[in-house]
Parts: sequence; C-alpha cells; structure tokens
Amino acid sequence: MKCRKCGGKASVNMRQHKLALCKDHYLEWIPEQTERFIEKYGMFTRGEKILVAVSGGKDSLALWDILNRLGYQADGLYLGLGIDGGIDYSHESQRLTEKFANEKNLKLHVVDIEKEYGQSIPVLAEISHRGKGKPCSVCGLAKRHEMNRIARDLGYAVLATGHNLDDEAAVLFGNTLNWSSEYLLRQGPVLPESDGLARKVKPLCRFYEREMTAYCLSRGIEYIYEECPFAVGSKSIRYKELLNQLETTRPGAKLTFYTRFLQARKRGDLFIEQDIEKVNLQPCTNCRQPTSAPGLCSFCRMIEKANPETANVTS
Amino acid sequence: MKCRKCGGKASVNMRQHKLALCKDHYLEWIPEQTERFIEKYGMFTRGEKILVAVSGGKDSLALWDILNRLGYQADGLYLGLGIDGGIDYSHESQRLTEKFANEKNLKLHVVDIEKEYGQSIPVLAEISHRGKGKPCSVCGLAKRHEMNRIARDLGYAVLATGHNLDDEAAVLFGNTLNWSSEYLLRQGPVLPESDGLARKVKPLCRFYEREMTAYCLSRGIEYIYEECPFAVGSKSIRYKELLNQLETTRPGAKLTFYTRFLQARKRGDLFIEQDIEKVNLQPCTNCRQPTSAPGLCSFCRMIEKANPETANVTS
Repeated sequence: MKCRKCGGKASVNMRQHKLALCKDHYLEWIPEQTERFIEKYGMFTRGEKILVAVSGGKDSLALWDILNRLGYQADGLYLGLGIDGGIDYSHESQRLTEKFANEKNLKLHVVDIEKEYGQSIPVLAEISHRGKGKPCSVCGLAKRHEMNRIARDLGYAVLATGHNLDDEAAVLFGNTLNWSSEYLLRQGPVLPESDGLARKVKPLCRFYEREMTAYCLSRGIEYIYEECPFAVGSKSIRYKELLNQLETTRPGAKLTFYTRFLQARKRGDLFIEQDIEKVNLQPCTNCRQPTSAPGLCSFCRMIEKANPETANVTS
Repeated sequence: MKCRKCGGKASVNMRQHKLALCKDHYLEWIPEQTERFIEKYGMFTRGEKILVAVSGGKDSLALWDILNRLGYQADGLYLGLGIDGGIDYSHESQRLTEKFANEKNLKLHVVDIEKEYGQSIPVLAEISHRGKGKPCSVCGLAKRHEMNRIARDLGYAVLATGHNLDDEAAVLFGNTLNWSSEYLLRQGPVLPESDGLARKVKPLCRFYEREMTAYCLSRGIEYIYEECPFAVGSKSIRYKELLNQLETTRPGAKLTFYTRFLQARKRGDLFIEQDIEKVNLQPCTNCRQPTSAPGLCSFCRMIEKANPETANVTS
C-alpha cells in the first residue's frame, strides 16, 4: 500500500477514511486534523492557557505532544492515584509522564491523591463503599474534582483530556442503551465553562484508538501499554469490543455513529437541547466547587469520611 | 428450576424478568402479557377488525393464535412472494399458514404477487435494479403496499405484524447508528392511521424471539424454521447477534434498550416529536395510496417497469 501524499511505502492505513500514509506524512496529518477539530468545535485559541490531563497513556501523551507542536500553551497535570494492580501502575505511568515532560521541557503539575487527602484511590473506594467493589467511580469523582481545582487555582481556561473516538463512541453507546437525556445531551467534544468550572474539551475525539497508538509509535513517545488494572472487564471495554465488531464488517461505523450523533444535535431536528447544568447548584462549603446538595460536595464528603480524625477536610 | 406460579417443573426461564414458568402457566402468561401491551400502547379494541400479516414463521402465527384466543377479530393475510432459495421457502410457508388457518377455522386472505403483478419478488428485484443485488428492499416495498391495499379494500382498521423485541431492538440499533430523526421518530409499537392507511401495530414488540419459539413449541404450532434465504448475512441479523452478546452479559439489556427508548419519547425531555408523515403526500395516480412524488408511487412504478407490454399497471 502506498502513501497517498508521496507514493512512498504507507505505514498506516485508515480504512474509515480510505487513506494510507507513510510515517512522515502521518506525523503531519495527525496534528493538522487535530487543528481542524479544535477549530471546528471551537475548543480554544492560542491565547488561552490549557491544562492537559496526562495519565502516561498513549492518548494523553499524544495530545500533549500535538498541542505543543501546534503552538498552544498547554501544561500537564498528572494525578497520582496510588494504583498498583501488581504492575506498579501508578508509579510507572508517573515515571513515563515525567520523562516525557522533562525531555520536551514542558511544565507538569503533579498531585498525589494520598499525600493530599490521606488515602489512595483504592483505599478511598473501600472506605466509602462506593462503586460496587471497583474504585472506578471514586476515581472518576476524584479526577474531576482535582482537575477542576487545579484549573481554577492556577488560572487555566481550558481542561483538555485525551479521550479518543473509541472512548467517545463507547460512552455514547452506553448512554444510548439507557436513553438518558441527562447523559446523552451532555456528551460532546466541548463542555462549556459553567459555574466557575473550566471549559472541558476533547481534541482527539475523532481519532481511532489505533491511530493514537500509531502516532506514539511513529513519534517515539514511550507510554504505559497496560490499561488500568481495574478497567479489565468494564462495561466500556465490552462496548468497545462490540463497536469494533461493527467496524470490522463496516469500516467507519464507529466514526459515523459518533459524528452523526453530533450532526443530529447540531441539525436540531431530533433532540431537545436544554440547559441541564443549571439545576440549583451551590458552592461546596469546603472546596467551593459547585454541588447540587447543600453542604459538602460528594468528593469532600468522601474525604471527610475517610479521615475521621481530621476535623476539617484538607486542601 | 420451578414455576413461580405453581411450583411445578419450569419449562421456560426468562432471565430478563427473573421469571420461570411451567408450560401451562407460560401458555397463560404470554396472552396475558400481550393483552397488557395492547392496552398499554392503545393498539386496538375488540370492536375493530384486525388484519394480521402472516408469513408462516413463528412470530406471526403466534400472534394470530394469541389474538384469536384473546377474542379479537383477527383475520390473516398471506403474501406469496415467490421465493424458493433451494428450500421451497414460499410454498412451504404458505402450506403451514393455510394448515394453521384450516385447523383453527380462521379466515385467511392469500395474495400471490406473481399472479397479481406478473412477476415474483426476486424477479421484480432483478428487473428494477433496486436493493444492491438483494430483493429485501423490493420485498419490503411490496409487502407494505399490499398490506395497505388489502386493509383498505377489505375494511380493516388495523394491520398487525409479528415483530418481536429482537426485531425492534435491531431496527432501533440500526437507526441509532445513523441518528436519523426520520426513522428514529417513526419507530414504536403503534403507527397511527394516516392518509387513509390503516393503523399499524406490533403486539409482540416486548417479547424476545426465543419466547415466541417457546410459545409455538408449547402450543404445538407448526411453523417454518428457516429464515428467508435472502436474510442471511443481513445487517439486521448482525445487529441481533451484537445485541445478544450484550444480553448474555446483562440479561434484559435488549429489552431495556427498547423500552427506555419508548419511555424517553413519552417523557418528552430528549426527542423533538414532530409530524413527520405530513410532507406533501398525494394519492398515486394508479393505486391511490399516498406517495411523496406526483404520479405513480414507487410500487406502481416498479410494476409498470416490470411489465412493459401492459399499458396500465394492474390491480
């Protein structure tokens, strides 16, 4: 197979686009496309300060790499979750993230959940009895809280995450199975700033997971290969497998599913768009982040429960 | 496993309802549930004349059986499509349909497409070059046209089809992959009467395919086991397989997907409901059925093309 741009030997073939590219043109094409998506969905400008949530995985490192190559002001945030899973998962992902930041001379903020709040994510999950024996919901809660906190405290206008098309299509599929308007109508490449929380964006939302793998390999970015040990057997992985089966018989099926959803919302003939956010939010009495119930937010309640000896929640 | 009603040996276990029943109680439960769905979705009353589209397969024969047991005025319509597929498909399904009608002393209308319009469905598909080498779209067009025609000419208020939950969930899944408002907002257990076309209803839309198999086996209804030979490898069969994978890991997933869609439409907080039907329909100059373009409807155009020697389309 030949590169469409130069006729040289292709190294990546994207069946959904009927497009094959050699390594060099692939490494040009990915940032060009990212720029196109940033503009198309109005994600951010070069004047805005961006905080990239970096996990040490291929997607977030690729995103950070691409944004900096495109000339955006993008710093990194690594959250130490304290997950071991027999593979020293958190330490290894932190090591790779720091190595990447040092090599590129990029600014990285590191927050260690255990140091900051007394307990690691798996322990917080155990103490709080949230999430049916898995720490995933506690982890999501903590990540959202900490990303919002750091963005606010350090003055970032935008929070960027490395969600790729496979992630987004799997979430959309799960939300579609339940037809929840609340979740369906919140999903998209941009979640606007609201109640003092930074805008959230997903610049990689139209790239397949395998495209990000190919980007990291071609660019020589070293990332953690393992999935989070707690993700094994999760719904989202099952949904990804189903969507990949569809994709095998119909290249582009995953992408179509996601982009037609966005088109339908834009077209305005299918969904009722409503301002779902504005349901009586008030600041948490401890951290000041918006919360629906009076008093402490879910995160601060969890931290208080996990540290009964401390009178007030920290940070 | 024991029958929940009598404690006897269960013969059917419905994991999605956490309900196991013996043969006798299963044969009571299915019509009771059908009655519940007929009422819940306002499908029809005992005063209305119902035409059941019967194919000789398990679903439509079960439907016809159930409606008559429940005391509804339900006659049958069998359409001879002229499909052989190496298994004498159409003849065998007609034989089984007529056998059922005779045994139960039910009124059955038979329309043979080739006798009525000069050509069988596979030949019509070939001549008209519709449907990418498969007669399925022509078959659907002809079935809709003939069911509407017979219902109108013979004064039936309601057309009932045997679509089960697996069928409906697969169609919904396909429509969701494309996010087409036109198709998504037309799907449901009842399509109201419109432009002189009879109301269309699907009383079995909440039963799993395997429940209909179990009903026919328990009731001793002889049906054609084979799928239509042309259905092999179709999208809808692929979607059914995917949904069955979901169902295996989460019993009830298929049912939830479909019923939550209906609930979301009823709730009114997700979809814009609009009167999609009313887009400049006018009567076909030959058959008088509503059509969007002036002149002949798609069906009559196809018949005219297939019979060039005849000046006017027949029937």
